[in-house]
Amino acid sequence: MADENPVRFGIMGCAEIARKVARAIHLSPNSTLHAVASRSVETAERFASRNGLSPTVKVYGSYSELLEDPHVDAVYMPLPTTLHLHWAILAAQNKKHLLLEKPTALDVGELDRILEACESNGVQFMDGSMWYHHPRTAKMKELLSDTKRFGQIKSILKILLFKIHSSSSYSGNSEFLDNNVRVKPDLDALGALGDAGWYCIGAIMWAMNYQPPSTVTALPSISRNSSGVILSCIASLHWEKEAVVATFFCSFLAHESMDLAISGSNGSLHLEDFIIPYEESSAFFTFTSGAKFVDLHVGWNVKPEETLVESELPQEAMMVQEFARLVKGVNNSGCKPDCKWPKVSRMSQSVMDAVIKSIELGFKPVYAAEF
Amino acid sequence: MADENPVRFGIMGCAEIARKVARAIHLSPNSTLHAVASRSVETAERFASRNGLSPTVKVYGSYSELLEDPHVDAVYMPLPTTLHLHWAILAAQNKKHLLLEKPTALDVGELDRILEACESNGVQFMDGSMWYHHPRTAKMKELLSDTKRFGQIKSILKILLFKIHSSSSYSGNSEFLDNNVRVKPDLDALGALGDAGWYCIGAIMWAMNYQPPSTVTALPSISRNSSGVILSCIASLHWEKEAVVATFFCSFLAHESMDLAISGSNGSLHLEDFIIPYEESSAFFTFTSGAKFVDLHVGWNVKPEETLVESELPQEAMMVQEFARLVKGVNNSGCKPDCKWPKVSRMSQSVMDAVIKSIELGFKPVYAAEF
Repeated sequence: MADENPVRFGIMGCAEIARKVARAIHLSPNSTLHAVASRSVETAERFASRNGLSPTVKVYGSYSELLEDPHVDAVYMPLPTTLHLHWAILAAQNKKHLLLEKPTALDVGELDRILEACESNGVQFMDGSMWYHHPRTAKMKELLSDTKRFGQIKSILKILLFKIHSSSSYSGNSEFLDNNVRVKPDLDALGALGDAGWYCIGAIMWAMNYQPPSTVTALPSISRNSSGVILSCIASLHWEKEAVVATFFCSFLAHESMDLAISGSNGSLHLEDFIIPYEESSAFFTFTSGAKFVDLHVGWNVKPEETLVESELPQEAMMVQEFARLVKGVNNSGCKPDCKWPKVSRMSQSVMDAVIKSIELGFKPVYAAEF
Repeated sequence: MADENPVRFGIMGCAEIARKVARAIHLSPNSTLHAVASRSVETAERFASRNGLSPTVKVYGSYSELLEDPHVDAVYMPLPTTLHLHWAILAAQNKKHLLLEKPTALDVGELDRILEACESNGVQFMDGSMWYHHPRTAKMKELLSDTKRFGQIKSILKILLFKIHSSSSYSGNSEFLDNNVRVKPDLDALGALGDAGWYCIGAIMWAMNYQPPSTVTALPSISRNSSGVILSCIASLHWEKEAVVATFFCSFLAHESMDLAISGSNGSLHLEDFIIPYEESSAFFTFTSGAKFVDLHVGWNVKPEETLVESELPQEAMMVQEFARLVKGVNNSGCKPDCKWPKVSRMSQSVMDAVIKSIELGFKPVYAAEF
C-alpha cells in the first residue's frame, strides 16, 4: 500500500551502510528516495548505478546541494562521526528531518548541539540503530516486563547483558586496524566503542527502560591501535538501588557475534544476533522461566524455549517507516517532533562518554552525577 | 563391566549433594560405596534408607569412625567449607584418597595445607567439579584448540566467558539468604562466589589452559547478606600479553542459569547449561565459525551449529570413575598421585582469593604476583 505522499529522503554520504538504507527507504511504504550526495558527483553516480536507483533520483556532488534541495524532507546521514556536528546542524537549519547514523556524535556535548538544532528548527531526530524496530525487540520487551515470568526489576533482579561484536573480515587485518575510517582518530575516533559498543549500551539501556545507571566502570582490558583508537574494550554499568549489573564487551578483534543475555529472578532471555538477525523474514530468541533442577540435580525441569517472530519488512525498513511516520506527523499534522528517540540516543551517548571518562581516570567508577 | 576390586568410598557428611554422588559411586564401574558418616548415626541412617543404600553399607555416627575404617580407600567430603581444613587433613593422614567438594577451602593457604597433607601421605586429591568430566567438555576443548575454526590464542584472541548461577527456589527467600549453610559466615563464608563463582572461574581457567591471568578485578556491584556473606558479585580476569579478557557473574539472586560463551578471532562457542546439562544422556553446545554478513548486511552466512555429545554415564559418575582410576593406580600399580587435579583446584582457589582481595581493596586490580 504505497503512500501517495511519501517522505522524500536524501542520503548524505555514500558509505556501505547507505546501500542498506537506500533499499530500506525503497521498501518502506511511506518513504521514497529523492536524492543522494557525495563529496564528488562520480561517487554519487557510482552509488546510484551500483544500487540500481531509479533515474529520477537526483545525484549531487556536494552535501550542500542536497541540503538546499527543497524537495528533500529528510536526510539520512551515514558520515564519519567527526563530521556529524557540522552537517547535522546544517541539515536541521535547512529544516531537514534527521536520521543520523550511530554513534551520533563524538560526545554528548556535540550531540546536545545537534539535538538543540533539531528542536529549534522543529525537525524529527532519530539515530540509525535498526534493531530497536524489529518486532522481536517489542516481543522481548513484553517478556522482560512480565514480572511473573521474568521477575521483579525493583527488588532483586540481577540483570546481566553482554555482547561481543566484530567482523571476522576485519580480524587480523592490520590494514583495517590502522587505516579504516572506523579506527581513524580524525573520522570515527570512538572506534569499537562507538561502532559496536553503541549497540551494547543501547541494549542495556533499553532493558533498563532508559533509567541512568548509578555508576559506569571501564575495565583495565583495552586494546588500541597505533593512533590510540579503541579496538576492544569492556565495561560495566551498575544500578545500585535496583541491584542490577550489566557488562558489555565490544571489539574489532573477535569473531562476529552479537549476544544479548538478560537474567531476572524468575527468567532469562538469550539471543546471539540481536543487532542483525540471522535472517530477514523472521528472528528468534530463547527464554527460560521458572527453571529448577530435577531431583538429585541431574538435569533441568525446563529447557530454553524458542520464540519466533515473523517480520514483514526488514528491521531497517521498519526503522525508516517509523521515522517517516513521525516526519509526516510533523509536516502534515502539526505534531511536535517525538522526543523519545532523541532521548534514547542521548542516553547511549552519555554512557559512552562515561566509559571514556572511566578509562581516562584509570578505570575508576564514574558516578551518574558526573556524566 | 563391574570391577572385581572397586575403590571403596566413604561419604563424610550427608549433604543434599551427597545423594547425587552416592548414586554416581554406584553407577561408576570401578567404585563402590562402603560407608556413610554423619555427626549423628540417625542422620546417616536416614540418608542410607532415603537413598536405598545396600544394607552392607556401613553407617557411622561420627566422621572419625569412618576415617578409622581400614576398608575405606577414598573419602568423598561434602562438608561446609569451614570444616574442610580439619577433616581433609585428617583424611589424608588416615591415608584416605580425597574427593573434596568445592569450594575446596576458605583460601589458598588452607588449600595448600590440605594439598601438602595429601602429597606427604601419598593420596590422590580431586575437587568435586563434575562438568570437567563430561565428554562435552573434551569436545569443546577440541574446538577451542582448533586455531583455524576458533582462532589464535596467542595473537588476537578475545575471549569472554560469562556465567550466571542461582537457584530460583532460593531467589527472594529471605530465610535462605540469611540462614542457609551457603551464606553462613562460619560455614560457607565464600557465599555465591564459592558456590557458583567457583564454576565460572574454573571454566575461564579451563579455557585458558590454566595460565594465570595478569590481573583480577572485582567490580563495584556486589550484594551481601546481613552477615556480610556475598550473595552476588561480578569480576573480570585479564591476560595482558594474550589480550584476553574474561568476566563472570555469580549470584544467589537471579534465575537459574549456567552460561558459558567464548569468542576467538574465527569462532565462538556457547552453551547455557555447562555445569549441569539439561539432560543426563546427552548434552549440546553451539559453535559458529567464519561468520560473516551477507551482502548489504541483511543476514548472516552461517548460524550457530549444534554439536550433540552422548554420555554413557552421568558426568558425576565419570568424575568418580576418573578419580577411582587414579586411586587404583596409586594403590595397585605404585603410581604417584596425579598432580593435574590439585593444580586445577589450586588455580580456581587462587583466583577466588584475588577476587576477594580486589573487593577488599575497593575493587582495584590485583596483579598476578600478588596472588
